[in-house]
Amino acid sequence: MPDTSTTLSLVDKLDAARTASIALAQAPTAQKNAGLEAIAAAVESGAASILPANELDLANGRENGLSTGLQDRLRLDEARLAGLAAATREIIALPDPVGGVVRGSTLPNGLQLTQVRVPFGVVGAIYEARPNVTIDIAALALKSGNAVVLRGGSAAENTNRVLVELIQGALASVGLPADAVQTIDEFGREGATQLMGARGYVDVLIPRGSAQLIDTVVRESKVPVIETGAGVVHLFLDRSADLDMATAIAVNSKVQRPSVCNALETLLVDADAAERLLPPVLAALADNGVTIHADERTRQLYPDAVPATDDDWATEHMSLDLSVKVVEGLDEALEHIRRYSTHHTESIVTDDIRTANRFLAEVDSAVVMVNAATRFTDGGEFGFGAEVGISTQKLHARGPMGLPELTSTKWIVRGDGQVRG
Amino acid sequence: MPDTSTTLSLVDKLDAARTASIALAQAPTAQKNAGLEAIAAAVESGAASILPANELDLANGRENGLSTGLQDRLRLDEARLAGLAAATREIIALPDPVGGVVRGSTLPNGLQLTQVRVPFGVVGAIYEARPNVTIDIAALALKSGNAVVLRGGSAAENTNRVLVELIQGALASVGLPADAVQTIDEFGREGATQLMGARGYVDVLIPRGSAQLIDTVVRESKVPVIETGAGVVHLFLDRSADLDMATAIAVNSKVQRPSVCNALETLLVDADAAERLLPPVLAALADNGVTIHADERTRQLYPDAVPATDDDWATEHMSLDLSVKVVEGLDEALEHIRRYSTHHTESIVTDDIRTANRFLAEVDSAVVMVNAATRFTDGGEFGFGAEVGISTQKLHARGPMGLPELTSTKWIVRGDGQVRG
Repeated sequence: MPDTSTTLSLVDKLDAARTASIALAQAPTAQKNAGLEAIAAAVESGAASILPANELDLANGRENGLSTGLQDRLRLDEARLAGLAAATREIIALPDPVGGVVRGSTLPNGLQLTQVRVPFGVVGAIYEARPNVTIDIAALALKSGNAVVLRGGSAAENTNRVLVELIQGALASVGLPADAVQTIDEFGREGATQLMGARGYVDVLIPRGSAQLIDTVVRESKVPVIETGAGVVHLFLDRSADLDMATAIAVNSKVQRPSVCNALETLLVDADAAERLLPPVLAALADNGVTIHADERTRQLYPDAVPATDDDWATEHMSLDLSVKVVEGLDEALEHIRRYSTHHTESIVTDDIRTANRFLAEVDSAVVMVNAATRFTDGGEFGFGAEVGISTQKLHARGPMGLPELTSTKWIVRGDGQVRG
Repeated sequence: MPDTSTTLSLVDKLDAARTASIALAQAPTAQKNAGLEAIAAAVESGAASILPANELDLANGRENGLSTGLQDRLRLDEARLAGLAAATREIIALPDPVGGVVRGSTLPNGLQLTQVRVPFGVVGAIYEARPNVTIDIAALALKSGNAVVLRGGSAAENTNRVLVELIQGALASVGLPADAVQTIDEFGREGATQLMGARGYVDVLIPRGSAQLIDTVVRESKVPVIETGAGVVHLFLDRSADLDMATAIAVNSKVQRPSVCNALETLLVDADAAERLLPPVLAALADNGVTIHADERTRQLYPDAVPATDDDWATEHMSLDLSVKVVEGLDEALEHIRRYSTHHTESIVTDDIRTANRFLAEVDSAVVMVNAATRFTDGGEFGFGAEVGISTQKLHARGPMGLPELTSTKWIVRGDGQVRG
């Protein structure tokens, strides 16, 4: 436990965020957009304060043995700051979800019901040393009328502190409450623990980062969580699959950006078409640098593959590695997917309408596709215009999340004296 | 911890529910409706097996000192069974939410996106000794295509076992998987604990019952929870309030059914109108048997009131008791509501459109009303036709829940070979 003064100070921050959220919920769209423009301008012109703080975090990271991959995600430079400013300005162009009418009706007794979108109130975010997420989440929360409490990881503590100061200045400059964006990095792990226990202060918690981070938050949080999870993504080549389409979709799904959650991890092929499809599809993948981890039947058709282990089927490689398995038709494919999928995205290549319809109906994933690359599971591609994350849970939001997924609703009831009989 | 055989057996039940949910998710509406009719018929004709089991639970309850109120909730008789059958048949008439299209679009690259409603999969329910909830939740889950695991409280264990056997028989009689409805009452408290930890087996958990039960589930569950909470419900009489309307709404909100969550608990009155409104409104309430717990200013105008304690403002009386306070206008009313409300339902009586609009905008509750009795916060009154509960959380569902709130969604993507550029 931290000493009492620290504890009070964290509660003070949560209290301040709650108070700020009340004013922010009522802020008109134009004022929130002015705040976003002020944040973009502050990020653009703030290199002189941001980059030295970032350099300090990088130096600490090198000293503490931070991997080069994590160092790269931590690093900011002029070009990345310009990119963050541009991304913030893109959010200005998106529709404000607050006040949107979801549905409504007039009851027989004359009561007028309207269900409208309202901000959650206070959103908590727990993520790892990626300072771009600080700007990203703050901008998305502002547009959706939510205050936000950020726990961004101690490795980015100095960078985040400067970024949050700039954001708070930008908010104040347009008359919005500066307290609407808070960082609690200075409280370390204990801060994350308290954030996860802060029912009544925080309305929803969004973890972003490694599977381990997300799992910890999901298991420990007493605040409701939106889970943005890993993708063990499957593509099933049906016996009727067109070879060219199968090749193009398999290669694009695996190769275009292998390190992200919508990239392909396991290719399933109907035994009836394995001989026709597998050799050319796997050769095309290998030409693109993919290592094939295959079951015995695949290796008979494609001897260059390395033997798949039991672990491969449940693995999100996030690299140019692909698990490949021959299955006895659609039923075995569905069974394999039920067993190993993380319910993110699955796709089928088929020319058979009955097979397509069964796949769409029976695969229980956030996104289910026919004859399309799995890489399309993305808020930007779906036309949502901003990356809140991809939910792999079933409550509240499922699949790519846009700004409306950062809101709750309330029912407005207008009467003229109605009482219940 | 229970012995190993018990533990395995609970996991077996969860496994069976998961397997049953896969078939149930694909069941056509007509088959699910046939299942509901079979359940209604089984409840109607099942008195000979249900009532002796219920009498056994009642005898145990009397022996264990169960309160007469709880004994009444536990008791079934022919008339109550007929009521349960009728309620089950009402669900047949409701639209099937599964397959409903939430939204969709065609992307510039020709991909066709459709977001459709799908069952959660397996719903868990934790409730107290009310066997009617067993039928109620099972019927709602069946219509929405969900398997359900019931933990109904050991005081109703014998009744629930018979009811679940009847339900399972009814499901099997129409070709639906009997395992889609399971009771885990026999595992006692340890069963409830395991249900709350059953991530991967159970998709959402719905607690129904006392505030303490709900709070325990919300705090301990690792499975996502839909919180159906207590209502410390407020009515604010603005300075412009019409006396007759104020009286009618206050009396109806408090008196019509004081034991439920949408009943009024605290009346706030603008100081400017206290002298005009309070004496007649409180006299009308007293005429209806209401005990007034009032602040000092109210007692000067209405000396029959008992002094309010600090606890009264946060209390859900659920009885003919009402907390009453004079406030200095709308701002103090909003502040009081922010501090003490459980964010269930608040209403205002006013003739002033600006005051009405501020109240609707600034009160952050599931349902906010102008010139209407708080008793209207109800799924039946809202036209949803079935009582799933009233959510007081902000994630997924807020306010009265209908069948659509028992579903998740998935995205269907139809392409003809699209890959990402």
